[in-house]
Formats: sequence, C-alpha cells, structure tokens
Amino acid sequence: MSQQAFQDYYPDNLAVCYGCGRLNEHGLHIRSFWDGDESVCTFLPGPHHMAIPGYAYGGLIASLIDCHSTGTAMAAAYRAEGRDMDTLPPRRFLTASLHVDYLAPTPIDTVLELRGRVREIKGRKVSVAVTLSADGSLCARGDVVTVQMPPDWMEKLKLKGSRGPGVKGSSEKLPDSDLS
Amino acid sequence: MSQQAFQDYYPDNLAVCYGCGRLNEHGLHIRSFWDGDESVCTFLPGPHHMAIPGYAYGGLIASLIDCHSTGTAMAAAYRAEGRDMDTLPPRRFLTASLHVDYLAPTPIDTVLELRGRVREIKGRKVSVAVTLSADGSLCARGDVVTVQMPPDWMEKLKLKGSRGPGVKGSSEKLPDSDLS
Repeated sequence: MSQQAFQDYYPDNLAVCYGCGRLNEHGLHIRSFWDGDESVCTFLPGPHHMAIPGYAYGGLIASLIDCHSTGTAMAAAYRAEGRDMDTLPPRRFLTASLHVDYLAPTPIDTVLELRGRVREIKGRKVSVAVTLSADGSLCARGDVVTVQMPPDWMEKLKLKGSRGPGVKGSSEKLPDSDLS
Repeated sequence: MSQQAFQDYYPDNLAVCYGCGRLNEHGLHIRSFWDGDESVCTFLPGPHHMAIPGYAYGGLIASLIDCHSTGTAMAAAYRAEGRDMDTLPPRRFLTASLHVDYLAPTPIDTVLELRGRVREIKGRKVSVAVTLSADGSLCARGDVVTVQMPPDWMEKLKLKGSRGPGVKGSSEKLPDSDLS
C-alpha cells in the first residue's frame, strides 16, 4: 500500500470536501489507497457518529462509501490513462448516484474497512462497488456512479494545476453542466 | 405545520443520532414535519459542509435524505395506526437501503428543502421518496427503504417508554436481527 492517499493528489482548491478533503479542518479526512486491484480505506468513527447507542449512523456510512468511491474513480482514471496521479491534467470525480444497502448494524467502536472495486469505466463515468466491514463482518454494500468533473467547472473553479491556488469565496455559480 | 418535529417524539435513548437526534450535541439536528401528505424538512448547511467551494458534499445530502426518511416513516406508522406520536408503544425506524440521485450541484449558502412522500407501508417496511431543492430548484432525489426497529432491539436498548432513560455505555451488542 502506498503512503500517499488518492486524496493527497487532489488540487488544493478541490481538496476541501467535508468527507475527503485534506484541507477541510472539520471534515472526516477519508483516505484511500490501492491494494492490488481493490481500493481500501479504513476509518474509526467518533463517538458522536452514532445512530443508536453503539452503532454508526447511516449518513456516515453513506459518506464513507461516497468519498471512497470518488477517490477510487480518480485513481482508476489515472491508471486507465497510464499515468501517475501527480501529473497534469488533474482528474476529479463527482457523484451522480449513490446506493447503499445497510446489511447489519455497524459498530462505532472499531475500525471500519471499505474496499472498492471498479465496475466500469465508460467515457467520463466510473462505477465503483464498495463493501464496508467491521471486524471482518460485512455491514454495508454500496454502488456509486461517479462522473468526471466537466472541464468548464474546472475552469470556473480557477483550477490552475495540481497544486493550484485556493478559490476565494464561494459566490460564483457553477455552469449548469449535466452531471449524468 | 406543527411546531413539534417528528424527532421530538423519539425516546431519549433513541434520540442520539448524529443526523437527527435532538440529544446529539455534535449532530445536524434534522427536524421533520407534516405538511399535508408530504413531510418537510429545511436545513441550512454549515460552510464546512462543502464538497467543492460553494456546494454541499454528497454525504450531507445523503444524511438529510436518510434521517428525514426514517422520521417520515415513524410519523407515517403512527398515522397508519391512527394514533398520536406521543402514545405508546413508540416506533422507530432504521434504514435498510438508501438511493440518491445527485441531479445538480447543491448550493451551500441557502436553505435546503426536503419533501418526503410515503410510497408504501408494508408490514414493518416503509418506503419514502424524497426531493431536495434549493431556491426552488431540484438538486437531488432520494428513495429510502426503512424498517421498523425489531422488538428485541428495543428491549436490548432498554427502551422503557416514550421518554425512557438513556442507555449507559455502548458495549452491549445488538441481536443479529434481520434488517431487511
């Protein structure tokens, strides 16, 4: 497993996500890595992330599956292009659809392991299947369709490079690009 | 619209969810109400809830749809039983599956409105369809299958009544009840 997470390669101005942005001070800091053909992410919930006493809330599980999948999609896109994640142009993926099956209560006091597998790369879309386990027991299964961020958004967000300057303010509206 | 939210009727020891528990100090405090046959919830994201500058992250949207749906399911169960939400026995729903279609970027600097509609009540299952809009524009659509918390879990969680005592600690393991 590499020491650099996929999310470490996000350009600064696209590394602010609450789920996976390394620059979001309040966020979850989800980190994903290759482990052969699978992507893996481990996460220890906080005690406040509960649904009912002792068990994680569904929104956390959805967030982990979501952000692990967009990270996996980015890494898979680089792999498919045969280049490293620190090369230009950068790639960044957004979620078009998210499906989660909650199979068993997810304990909150142990490390959760997510494993992603790329189902399909088709044009700008990358589909990822994810399992979430605790202590070796499967707790949830996810299917996520991600889509590469459109070039006009990258432009609008003033993306200048793989370590570009942060975007000041958030008042500019993104173009109405089709997400799907 | 009533001033009491659905979530205000959750028994204390089941009112700790990060998404919708009124007793979770760190949580989102999602609150849902009837508006005729629809359930409605409004939520103003925090600035840290971003995905990319100016827009909400997918996990927040999934959390809002999830918790608004479990609340709606509970309220719908009471309606179907022809009784008020402050009567015993209490009802509480968990998520079996969650599907979200992200249709357009969701702005972070405005109040989001979720509207839920009960699709089906079948035994212990309640299915809910949700829309999420910002400034009148549809941003996401959700479909959630919820299931009533099994009686053995209620027992295990020491639920004594609609304002029962809190559960101490989280080391007790829930029975392996079938969620689906």
